[in-house]
Amino acid sequence: MLVGSLPTADPLVSSVGKWWKDKAAEIYGIIPDFGGFLVKADSEHTPGPYSYGRDHADGANMLANALAPFGGIVIWRCFVYDCEQDWRDTRTDRARSAYDTFVPLDGKFLPNVVLQAKNGPMDFQPREPVSPLFGGMRKTNQMLELQITQEYTGQQVDLFYLGVPWSEVFGFDTRAEGEGSLVSGITAGKVFRQAHHGVAGVANTGDDQSWTGHVLAQANLYAFGKLAWSPNRSPEEIAREWAMLTFGDDPRVTETIVSMLLASRDIYERYTAPLGIGWMVNPGHHYGPNVDGYEYSRWGTYHRADSKGIGVDRSIRTGTGFAGLYEKENARVYDSLSDCPDELLLFFHHVPYTHRLKSGKTVIQHIYDSHFEGVERVEALRADWKRLEGLIADERYDSVLERLDKQLANAREWRDVVNSYFYRKSGIPDEQGRTIY
Amino acid sequence: MLVGSLPTADPLVSSVGKWWKDKAAEIYGIIPDFGGFLVKADSEHTPGPYSYGRDHADGANMLANALAPFGGIVIWRCFVYDCEQDWRDTRTDRARSAYDTFVPLDGKFLPNVVLQAKNGPMDFQPREPVSPLFGGMRKTNQMLELQITQEYTGQQVDLFYLGVPWSEVFGFDTRAEGEGSLVSGITAGKVFRQAHHGVAGVANTGDDQSWTGHVLAQANLYAFGKLAWSPNRSPEEIAREWAMLTFGDDPRVTETIVSMLLASRDIYERYTAPLGIGWMVNPGHHYGPNVDGYEYSRWGTYHRADSKGIGVDRSIRTGTGFAGLYEKENARVYDSLSDCPDELLLFFHHVPYTHRLKSGKTVIQHIYDSHFEGVERVEALRADWKRLEGLIADERYDSVLERLDKQLANAREWRDVVNSYFYRKSGIPDEQGRTIY
Repeated sequence: MLVGSLPTADPLVSSVGKWWKDKAAEIYGIIPDFGGFLVKADSEHTPGPYSYGRDHADGANMLANALAPFGGIVIWRCFVYDCEQDWRDTRTDRARSAYDTFVPLDGKFLPNVVLQAKNGPMDFQPREPVSPLFGGMRKTNQMLELQITQEYTGQQVDLFYLGVPWSEVFGFDTRAEGEGSLVSGITAGKVFRQAHHGVAGVANTGDDQSWTGHVLAQANLYAFGKLAWSPNRSPEEIAREWAMLTFGDDPRVTETIVSMLLASRDIYERYTAPLGIGWMVNPGHHYGPNVDGYEYSRWGTYHRADSKGIGVDRSIRTGTGFAGLYEKENARVYDSLSDCPDELLLFFHHVPYTHRLKSGKTVIQHIYDSHFEGVERVEALRADWKRLEGLIADERYDSVLERLDKQLANAREWRDVVNSYFYRKSGIPDEQGRTIY
Repeated sequence: MLVGSLPTADPLVSSVGKWWKDKAAEIYGIIPDFGGFLVKADSEHTPGPYSYGRDHADGANMLANALAPFGGIVIWRCFVYDCEQDWRDTRTDRARSAYDTFVPLDGKFLPNVVLQAKNGPMDFQPREPVSPLFGGMRKTNQMLELQITQEYTGQQVDLFYLGVPWSEVFGFDTRAEGEGSLVSGITAGKVFRQAHHGVAGVANTGDDQSWTGHVLAQANLYAFGKLAWSPNRSPEEIAREWAMLTFGDDPRVTETIVSMLLASRDIYERYTAPLGIGWMVNPGHHYGPNVDGYEYSRWGTYHRADSKGIGVDRSIRTGTGFAGLYEKENARVYDSLSDCPDELLLFFHHVPYTHRLKSGKTVIQHIYDSHFEGVERVEALRADWKRLEGLIADERYDSVLERLDKQLANAREWRDVVNSYFYRKSGIPDEQGRTIY
């Protein structure tokens, strides 16, 4: 044990509970309005209740008991999965993990425990379905965790306005209490009438002059604050508000920036991992393309591409069953090869490269087309920005242009690596005969 | 400039030459028998004469002039290549680089300059052809650089007795002055009658109790010393000598260890990168399998595998021409798809997976078979070692057994990753129907 000189941290051992009670009393003696504890347990090599054969309610409740006399709360993160998975194992599914860990404990947490779950079941990818934990727990306080910093979404080099996907998350209908059971209702405590609820964000501020590295990434910090309190506002409205507060009211500036921000997620998605499969990034720092970067590793994030097809089968009948963790109609849509939305197809299904999307394209042609388009659209972003020269302060203009130049180089690298990877693997040529290496 | 307060390090600027002359005089005033300088220039982001538009003779000779009055020498490393290569570029060939850099300068180096070249044209892989620099430079002092530490050959976890491949290097007939122009003759100064010649090694000693991590890796340090002075001695004889000096003269111990050492390179080669292609390791630390680890990177080390075949075309007519850098008969053999030895096939040629090796197997079946065999043979190594329990000191016995356990886990990971990679890419099943993921 790092503190307390105890022989164990087992939450059911009375000396452990007593140590935390004494510590809580000590803290509240000094800070009477102390809020409580935020805990990451059994998560990516951190210890937790599992280290002692206990469950997460045992762990959270022990701390909650210590805080209860003082009105404190425990925020307990749900980012729990097997990070020592064998890549050969196709039955274990990281996407299921938080659900399988916490839903069986629904109702067992004390009233001053709040579970904090990431928006997606994997980890802040550019595209994921909403975690089935939202709507899956009726008797537990819940918070939504978003990531404002762009770990997997361009790292403040590539432009990615997160207001758009966040808005989709808030607007997702879990159908937990019938139609209209939006995530925004759950985080506002309206769907299940929890006492504690809300939204947390992993911030994107640093020691850069602009705070956020990319000047336009300030829009993400702004949008987070706005959406946390008004989750049903449109991301376009928020983007316009931010642009005017930041750059003034010249409509040429405002409208250019708003359109760049609104297009940015779609553009980023086009040149990176296709159709909801995620990852394909360099291990460690998570920037730039590496299709097999996590394919033969222990982190549970696979694409399962072979010479015939790609995707993770999370269907109910032949896959990991993850699709079945949603409420009935949502489960039916995700589970159905024909009804599953294109943008999440490879998250839920393993399909041949020749599978035809709702768009009419085959999967392989979609990969090629979207990657060529992604680069073209970054070129267009850059041209849009260049039209603002002289209309905004040079320092900010130059700084954003420099980022756009880097984004363009990054997008080209993604395009060529991803297209080459799939051409070399599938042997299927691009219908348009463009250069693939 | 880090030292000397000079505005440049351009070797042809007189103030630079003067600075080094003064520095040499200063050093020899303190250390009269100082040997000279060992230089890594223009190599993996180090600066060098190329930084100033000069060539490597300009750089080496400037330093040699400074040392000459005191009898000192310059050892100048030949590990020069473009480490910012574009992976899309199939014409630039890292294997050619040292040859293309130094051979045109043959005869231009001062008599107290010695060029030091690695044994292979790439970088200390388990299997490479001998660098064509040996035999390629008739009027230049030359040294051979070997790597005693196992960077790419198991990192003192996996057993790899380097006496075997080193012996092959020394025994390689460059044919530079007709048959019998062995590398051992060049490093002994006999083929071209250079004044300076020899062998250098990157040592494998550290702060471990056994010095070398793996107790049996001490054999590599021993073999390096022996072969440096007697390059034509058999690696088996040296292994036996080392085993008896280290473990005593019980023939059960000696013969087991000798047979393990002698088999070790062949075993390691079976479960790692196939048929001379090299790399396929994790970037950075270079341990463990990652087939595409360097495929889309700037380091110039590619396998070019696609759905149809694998290998780098270094032939004269259709490839990078590297095969043509050898003396006539060697060039003919390497350039010929039918005569090139199996173990170097993918170094010199790009072939379909269905290409039949001299062994009678197809390339893909060779990949599967050799990887399954590699693991079986590590299991056999472990069983051999277990028979020595009680015959050698427990501490050393346990330490080696622990390494063999790790090697076995590593070999299984290599087998499954490499086999799965090629099965997923080629779509061709194993003839024997063994488990591939």
